[in-house]
Amino acid sequence: MIILGIDPGLRTTGFGVIEKQGTRLRYIASGTIKTGLEGALPPRLKVILDGVQEVVSTYRPTCAAIEKVFVNVNPQSTLLLGQARGAAISALVGADLAVAEYSPTQIKQAVVGTGKAAKQQVQDMVSRLLKLPGLPGSDAADALGVAICHANSHDALALIGPLASAVQGLRVKRGRLV
Amino acid sequence: MIILGIDPGLRTTGFGVIEKQGTRLRYIASGTIKTGLEGALPPRLKVILDGVQEVVSTYRPTCAAIEKVFVNVNPQSTLLLGQARGAAISALVGADLAVAEYSPTQIKQAVVGTGKAAKQQVQDMVSRLLKLPGLPGSDAADALGVAICHANSHDALALIGPLASAVQGLRVKRGRLV
Repeated sequence: MIILGIDPGLRTTGFGVIEKQGTRLRYIASGTIKTGLEGALPPRLKVILDGVQEVVSTYRPTCAAIEKVFVNVNPQSTLLLGQARGAAISALVGADLAVAEYSPTQIKQAVVGTGKAAKQQVQDMVSRLLKLPGLPGSDAADALGVAICHANSHDALALIGPLASAVQGLRVKRGRLV
Repeated sequence: MIILGIDPGLRTTGFGVIEKQGTRLRYIASGTIKTGLEGALPPRLKVILDGVQEVVSTYRPTCAAIEKVFVNVNPQSTLLLGQARGAAISALVGADLAVAEYSPTQIKQAVVGTGKAAKQQVQDMVSRLLKLPGLPGSDAADALGVAICHANSHDALALIGPLASAVQGLRVKRGRLV
């Protein structure tokens, strides 16, 4: 099982790819997709869409997981973050990947063992669990964290069925949403 | 010039396709993409993505315009609407369409002549401008309205260049974003 984790954002979207073999986790890749600070929204969303599509076509994940985002004190920021997350999810579902969603608390619980861990602790534990030679960047660490959370989730293998049947008009073909 | 207008929403996304020949506008098609009320978010976004992609492949628009959305009193609704709009824009930019954005006030101004028009007036004027045999539904009328607004905009033909150059990493190839 190859899992793609996504930490969505309009300026920076983190991604992390890991492989799960039995109970062992292996690091494959991680990084960030940056849209820059300037410009109209649609081309910035295209950078996210194209970037996630490229990660998918390069690493061929078998499933995906994305961090849930929360409403910001600034409603306009909430709207922008929502659109960025919509573009990242579009790239995933457009590639027929089932997408699981986890809250920051669930991810910290899975990675560090407590839902109230600091960002630094997440980076440390991601590095230790995946035997990385150094600390990953904050966005990449969060993306690897959501992938680890999904790997450890009971839902990981049972996800495709319920997700597919939850919405009219989607079908499962060879184990994938079509 | 064939213009695709989109009125984004998580439950219902309206679309409208019109052709502009000189100053004449001709109705081509309109309708709605419905995701249903139930189910996880990623498959619902896939319904929007697939639906807009199908409209694009069926009617082959040369450009697109989408209504700007505003923050809701409920921040969670704002986040959901943002993600739905992100999926609709993803389908458009994924098809290499330049996407213009107009506020509801700009659309009402273009269609009815006043930025404070009621929904019914927009439906009436869209029907009259496009010589429809009856009133379009509210979501389809809003989508046709944003297409009409784009047809009448000074930016309509000059859009591809500035949008493309506004963002690092995008290029224009044969007049399209790549």
